[in-house]
Amino acid sequence: MFLSELIPEEEALKIIKSTPLNLKVEEIPLEKAHRRVLAEDVKSLLPSPPFDKSAMDGYAMRAEDSFGHSQTKPAHLTIEDRIGAGELSSKTLKTGKAIKIATGAPIPEGADAVVMEEYTVEDGDSLDVETSLTPGENINPRGEDLKKGDLVLKRGKLLKPADLAIIASAGYSTVKVFKKPEIGVITTGSELVMPNPNISGAEVINSNYYTLKALVESTLALPGIVHCVDSAKLVEEELEKMLETCDAVITTGGTAISKGDVVVDVADKLGKVLIHGVGMKPGKPFAFGMIHKKPVFMLSGYPVAAMVQFDIFVRQELLRMQGIQNEPLRVRRTATRKIASTLGRTEYIRAKADNKTVTPLKIKSSGVIRSMVESNCYVVIEENLEGFEEGEECEVLLYNSLQI
Amino acid sequence: MFLSELIPEEEALKIIKSTPLNLKVEEIPLEKAHRRVLAEDVKSLLPSPPFDKSAMDGYAMRAEDSFGHSQTKPAHLTIEDRIGAGELSSKTLKTGKAIKIATGAPIPEGADAVVMEEYTVEDGDSLDVETSLTPGENINPRGEDLKKGDLVLKRGKLLKPADLAIIASAGYSTVKVFKKPEIGVITTGSELVMPNPNISGAEVINSNYYTLKALVESTLALPGIVHCVDSAKLVEEELEKMLETCDAVITTGGTAISKGDVVVDVADKLGKVLIHGVGMKPGKPFAFGMIHKKPVFMLSGYPVAAMVQFDIFVRQELLRMQGIQNEPLRVRRTATRKIASTLGRTEYIRAKADNKTVTPLKIKSSGVIRSMVESNCYVVIEENLEGFEEGEECEVLLYNSLQI
Repeated sequence: MFLSELIPEEEALKIIKSTPLNLKVEEIPLEKAHRRVLAEDVKSLLPSPPFDKSAMDGYAMRAEDSFGHSQTKPAHLTIEDRIGAGELSSKTLKTGKAIKIATGAPIPEGADAVVMEEYTVEDGDSLDVETSLTPGENINPRGEDLKKGDLVLKRGKLLKPADLAIIASAGYSTVKVFKKPEIGVITTGSELVMPNPNISGAEVINSNYYTLKALVESTLALPGIVHCVDSAKLVEEELEKMLETCDAVITTGGTAISKGDVVVDVADKLGKVLIHGVGMKPGKPFAFGMIHKKPVFMLSGYPVAAMVQFDIFVRQELLRMQGIQNEPLRVRRTATRKIASTLGRTEYIRAKADNKTVTPLKIKSSGVIRSMVESNCYVVIEENLEGFEEGEECEVLLYNSLQI
Repeated sequence: MFLSELIPEEEALKIIKSTPLNLKVEEIPLEKAHRRVLAEDVKSLLPSPPFDKSAMDGYAMRAEDSFGHSQTKPAHLTIEDRIGAGELSSKTLKTGKAIKIATGAPIPEGADAVVMEEYTVEDGDSLDVETSLTPGENINPRGEDLKKGDLVLKRGKLLKPADLAIIASAGYSTVKVFKKPEIGVITTGSELVMPNPNISGAEVINSNYYTLKALVESTLALPGIVHCVDSAKLVEEELEKMLETCDAVITTGGTAISKGDVVVDVADKLGKVLIHGVGMKPGKPFAFGMIHKKPVFMLSGYPVAAMVQFDIFVRQELLRMQGIQNEPLRVRRTATRKIASTLGRTEYIRAKADNKTVTPLKIKSSGVIRSMVESNCYVVIEENLEGFEEGEECEVLLYNSLQI
């Protein structure tokens, strides 16, 4: 396999998006469903609230008994019963009567309003009501939130705290969600070692090990990660092992053409390499293939290039594998200085954006991790543009908008 | 304890923020540090890259050997050695010589540039270089990313994938982070049952159980949750048990004055209630106290009120307990219709905002969970305002900006 002809980024994305998905569904307890993705439409099994409910601590009564009354001319009623939340009154309320009621308790039969405690004076069983009520006042009517059969939430919804509340209210204690895909990560490179202050010779710290695990986590998928030296035999073994259990594999390193670059060759042997080399910067040495019907994303060994490739080619796909639709929003910002670019490559310039402007970082090398740490966005320069002048509007991809 | 005089929201926030923090620190493996918070400044233990490094697959050489050369007038060199990533050449490069080099490999002594493979023709040990190089070309110099002793990241940083890469490159395989606080949650209410389609009588589904657990999770803290009926004795027992192991406790329900409202009384017995009743809507029946030197947040039983109280009073405090600074951004949007409000209360109107405008939902009842599900922001109306007219700019708190 040789990185010969670069294909445009758009074409690479099209190839990746056209690979078939294999979404799996599992049923889990609702209390574990925060940040999971609904695998089916949820329809309400019952009305919510299930009965006319008091919205206040006060007294259930007939509104008409209060008509025309006020602090100076209170209505005089008799308290017939007292119910807390969770209690039902057996009484049917008649004119001239009141039932003390707690927030959340069912409105007794015959009552059509609740007067707040603040507007009453209680003395034994007698009650003065110092205000005039409208029918329905301080009552949450049955079905106000949900009617039985209402569509509550749609398949594909990433569940937030309030979503769990409405699913519970719809009568469900379990929920069907998409399974989190398991993503194997293999970092390759004979020069790479785990972090320590005393590295020697040609050793380089394997920072991709940490970044890639975290990047997979940031998509809510489940990473499993190993490191492998630049040996075709060992890379093949690891890849085969990963593909047995994982839904997709990501590799770093070994995607260009040089001594020891083995990953793409191995992928080509085991399956079909569909992309090798993309017209983008950084990130040109990106490869993608299908092995045993599973997607394999081959990223550069260069930390910054690997992060850009992940953001552009992998992130959306890992989301798609769990049923999440999240088109990252591209916004427009004014360049605070000239930004140069190469024709024929889509460039991702690390930059800092505020609400109006964007300033490219001075660091450009794709070896410099600081450029990712200190930036909050990419300025995206399409392949047919030579860059932007100071004061020109440019297209910006905010890291925040990648986050789900 | 009686909800008698409402204090302004601002004063309540001041009381909560003035309670002492008890931040705990733990050292964890770097690979588990994604979305954890740095408890100390990180300084680089070594330069990164640790040596001058080839940025390309190609040939290390002396730039001056290429001066004036081009495709039509190539320079003729001799290949002396070939090194992959992770290998060091023992040769010192002399004029007229080249050493084949892989991306990431250390630049051999004597060389000051790397020519990309694309601009060369290799034939056995002879090499034609068809371009002219500048000294330093295609070399990532030692320390380009980090110098030894550089401040890499500051205490309080919530760690993102790229942050882990730079900490690794700085030589660390472990990192000191703030411990995640354990937050006990007690939902109270005798009427509450777990979700099922066949509830009867005065039963109400306990949606707070799910929401509060998820809300705590959304702050990265660790929730432990139980439900308790409205019994002073049982609430006291649960509270004492939670306070033994947890760093803070949140309750829902039992914060107003009515039959069965016991939570605030119990808190007053066990410790000191500092807030009971806040001038806000929804969310008035909020209480806050310190028990055994731990904060106890007492939220309304009403789902929407509890969520608003969490967002305004609890969320920031749970973040502060783990060293995270995240002032939610309030932005300004134009009201698409009149929004009325009550003087003397800070109102949180559930609404939908886009980039320019905001539209309040028609649902107003704080019993209606749908109002949280269907909104993406609060319109915040300060207590001294009576609302906004159509076309007026109003203050908006986007849910997204609460998210970390």
